[in-house]
Formats: sequence, structure tokens, C-alpha cells
Amino acid sequence: MHSHPPRIGIIGSGAIGGFYGLMLARAGFDVHFLLRSEYQAVCERGLSLDSAVHGALHMRVQAYVSAADMPPCDWLLIGAKATSNEQLAPLIVQAAAPGAKVVLLQNGLGVEEQLRPALRSDMHLLGGLCFICVNRLAPGVIRHQALGAVNLGYHSGPASDCGVALVNEGAGLFQAAGIDSQAMPNLALARWQKLVWNVPYNGLSVLLGASTSPLMADSNSRELIQALMAEVVQGAAACGHVLPAGYAEHLFQVTERMPDYWPSMYHDHVHKRPLELEAIYAEPLARARAAGCSMPRTEMLYQALSFIDCSDRPA
Amino acid sequence: MHSHPPRIGIIGSGAIGGFYGLMLARAGFDVHFLLRSEYQAVCERGLSLDSAVHGALHMRVQAYVSAADMPPCDWLLIGAKATSNEQLAPLIVQAAAPGAKVVLLQNGLGVEEQLRPALRSDMHLLGGLCFICVNRLAPGVIRHQALGAVNLGYHSGPASDCGVALVNEGAGLFQAAGIDSQAMPNLALARWQKLVWNVPYNGLSVLLGASTSPLMADSNSRELIQALMAEVVQGAAACGHVLPAGYAEHLFQVTERMPDYWPSMYHDHVHKRPLELEAIYAEPLARARAAGCSMPRTEMLYQALSFIDCSDRPA
Repeated sequence: MHSHPPRIGIIGSGAIGGFYGLMLARAGFDVHFLLRSEYQAVCERGLSLDSAVHGALHMRVQAYVSAADMPPCDWLLIGAKATSNEQLAPLIVQAAAPGAKVVLLQNGLGVEEQLRPALRSDMHLLGGLCFICVNRLAPGVIRHQALGAVNLGYHSGPASDCGVALVNEGAGLFQAAGIDSQAMPNLALARWQKLVWNVPYNGLSVLLGASTSPLMADSNSRELIQALMAEVVQGAAACGHVLPAGYAEHLFQVTERMPDYWPSMYHDHVHKRPLELEAIYAEPLARARAAGCSMPRTEMLYQALSFIDCSDRPA
Repeated sequence: MHSHPPRIGIIGSGAIGGFYGLMLARAGFDVHFLLRSEYQAVCERGLSLDSAVHGALHMRVQAYVSAADMPPCDWLLIGAKATSNEQLAPLIVQAAAPGAKVVLLQNGLGVEEQLRPALRSDMHLLGGLCFICVNRLAPGVIRHQALGAVNLGYHSGPASDCGVALVNEGAGLFQAAGIDSQAMPNLALARWQKLVWNVPYNGLSVLLGASTSPLMADSNSRELIQALMAEVVQGAAACGHVLPAGYAEHLFQVTERMPDYWPSMYHDHVHKRPLELEAIYAEPLARARAAGCSMPRTEMLYQALSFIDCSDRPA
């Protein structure tokens, strides 16, 4: 499909963008990183990865502080928070080659719908669901604890085959970099699947100040996690997305076998950054409600987190 | 009904026992305080009250460290936490005159049922619902911020008139001490009414680390408080206790006009004391469930608080 090997741009190089960008660079791809607060540190010291799966890795990378300086990219992986998509949209467009594929490596619902109007009509938009325990230890320093898969689904764009070929091509890039990646025929379903994990664990880590191990060790929090997961499964079904049987139980068991992990929302809370409440809570709640499904525990968690978010950053 | 003026015993003199005991002593009643950790301080310095309603008050009081040393009391006001009723039962019996009236000034459901088997058959058991903003600043030092009413209802004992006369007599004691007090013909209903306040505010103060003013200032926590209140009203109705119309709205508005207040459960959490989860959450949830009524938000709050309670005091 490409006369030249694909050029990959990484927008927002926190834990997610940094990890996948570095893995792709290590595999020999031509990767370009757009950075903000970490630019200086990455220019001076490169990117470092301490991975329990892939070992230690340190690389000099092609880093930019301005999208205008980047070469046109065929693939753009967006690892920034969903809360910053509006400001990022012009930069994404600026860095995009004609017919570029933009992949939102973000959680929640509605992130593609929010970004789509700001993109050109020749651009493809995909969603990427990351199942990975990764965090940022310092500017340019990433720790990868476990897992790593990225599942891709097509959202919108000029593809004539519902994006099947592009999604397979994208999954192939990740696979070539040693990363598990599946093509998801239904992005909306895939996003609801990921919410089965994010809704309980992200929120409860903030609300209870607890990482996954203590949450999985206490009978009360276990019951609460399962009740929240069941609500998400019901919400998805009400919206027409019937999840695979036993999917919640599967994620529950995966989490039980994971190393102790602090979800990203906890780090956002500790650093008083905006919490991704719109995509992970408000939008799923609104869609389920519109489909006649109430999610009282999820709503309570959203209300409690909204209170905490306002307390973190008073207007 | 009494040949001698009633002798009043106060068991557990934290904020509640200390406040009401001191007010009754100020009014000239013969009041005896059973103390544990505060005994030394109260013997040396008496009891002090700083009341926004009644002014400053300081009194030497009749204090005891052992129930065996107390004279037989006609009325026993139990101000200790419901979590300590089992240990207190023998002391209550020891301090009780024949035909004594025991008043549980505690929140929640099931506290009388739990204590009753440990009392003598000649003893009357009443419940007292305190609508008051009061806390303990130091041993023997109490701050009263607002309100103050005690509503009394009869639970069980040898009264031939369902306890109507005794409840009126008890309310009369409080009224003689300048305290608002109503006789409640239905104690179970009165306990559910009080839960409409305790379920949201006690739990959310711990979960969100917030006192009443910030909880009442944020639209998310306001909605959550109202949703929790509505669940309690529904749970009560399912159990056959239909609350007065507009009761939840009334308590919500009362709280809006209150000075900023940290509920007692918050203080228990900060001092890593056991939280009163059984009486305020578990028992109402069990009764509503048995009546076919689910209270998902209340249950979630209970699960979250149970997690916090276990974290506060690891086994």
C-alpha cells in the first residue's frame, strides 16, 4: 500500500505514547515524537524504557516541540489524554501526510466523534485500546509492568472496505514491533469492552486511594468491582453491543494475575491533572441512559470523582 | 411516677453523652457520668461546653471509672458508639435501678435489638435520635455548633401503654434542660428518618474527605446526596415505614443552613476507630433487601466504607 515504509508520528509522549513509539522505533520504524513538557529531557537523554516483558531499552529519538517541524506522517498515534484532544487537533492535522491514519490510543467513548470534525476528509481515524500496565517515572523514563496489547478498530474516513485493510495494516505495524495487536471489527464494541476495566479500576483507585492489589484483596471492593463491571456490560448491551460471554470475569481474573498497578487516573489525581471523566464515565452514562439503562453505581462513581476533580483544581 | 427526682446516668461521654449530660446537670438533675479514657481529665477539670446556642458552660461533675461505683440510675443515656454496645451491656445493667429506662442515643437500625437480650426484663429500652452538630475537642471539652433536638421512641420493656408515658417523661426531662425533644410514636420510623441524614453525610464525609459545606456547594455531591436520600426513603417504605412527604428535602435544606460540620464518622475515620457501618448501612440494606428493595448507591457506599474501615485498622 505504501511506496515508502510508513512514517510514524507520536503525539503526546507520556507512558502510552512513549512506550509504543519506542517499541516501534526499536523495530526499525521511522518514528517522530511531538513533545511538550518532556522535550528538553528527551532531547538531552533520549527515551528510556524499563520493561518487565521486553527488558531495558534506551534510545535517542527524533523529538519535536512543534508540529510544524515534523515531516508528514502516515500513521499518527495519539497517546495524550482525551481531555486535551481539542487543543491537539490542529497539531495532528499539521503532522498528517495525505491519507494519514490517526489512531486514538485513549480510553472511553466519544473520543473519535469529538476529534473527527477537526480532521481533513482524506484522513482516516482509528481507535486503539491498550491493555497494558505502564507508567511514566520521570520525563522520558517509562516503566512497563505487564501486558501490552493494542486492539485497533476503524472509526471513519475514506476507506472503501470499512477500514478492514487499514486496521490490519496497523495491527501489522504493532506486531512487527513485538506487540500483541488485534483488529476489532466493531470499534464501539471494543471501546465498551475496555470500559469494563476502566470504569471500576480507574475510578476506585482515586476514590479509595488504592492500587489493584489491595482492591482485589478485599471482599467488599471485589464485590463493588464486579457490580460496576456488570453495569458496564448491561450498558453496552442496552446500546446494542453485546459483549462476549464471561468477558467481565475474564478481565477480573486478568487483573488478579497482574502485578500491583496504579491506573492512570490515580496519577492524574495525584498530580492534580484533569481526570478523564467525560470519556470514561459521562459519555457511557449518557448513552446507556438514552437507551433506557440506568447505571446507578457508575453514576455515583462519576459524581464522586467529579467532586474530587473539582476539589483538585478549584475554578 | 417517681417518689424521688430521677437519677440520670450517662454511659460513654464523648460529644453526645457529654453534651446532654452536662445540659441535664446544668438544669439541676442528679447526673452521673461513667467514663473511660476521659476519666482522669474530667475528674481534674470537669466538663466544658462551648455552645453556639447555650453559651459557655463549665461544671464539675460526678464521674466514675467503674459502673460498680455508680448509684442505681433511673435513666441511663447511652452516648457511646453502637460498635461498643456488647461490651457496655453488663455496665448498663450494673448501673440500672429497678425499672430503669435505658435510652440509646445512637444512629442506625438494630441497636436496640442487639442490646435487648443483655438487659433485665424489668428494664425499659428506648431509642433517642439526636439532631445536633456537636463534637469533642479534647477530653472533657465539647463544642456544640448547632441544633440539639432529641426525639425519643419506646422499644421494649414492661410498659403497659406501649411506653407512651415513659417516652413523654423522657422528653420532659430533656425539655426541662432546655433541649428540644419529641415523643416518637414509632421508633423504627424515627430511626429510618434519621438515616436519611446519616447515610449520605456520614459516609460521604469519609469517602470524599469533605464536611457538609463543600458537599452542599458542589452540584455533583448534591445530586449524589439526594439520590442516596431517595434510596433511604424507598428502603423505609419497603419496610413499611412511609416517611412524611418532603422529609428528605427538609433535611437537605436544614443541612444547607447548618454551619460547616464534620459528621462523627469522619472523626472516627481520622482517629482510626471502628466506623458504625453495621447499624447505619449493613442493617438498613439487609432489611430493605429482605423487603425486595435494592439500594445500589447505599450498598456501594457501604462497600467503599468497609474497604476504608479495613484499611484503617488492618486485622
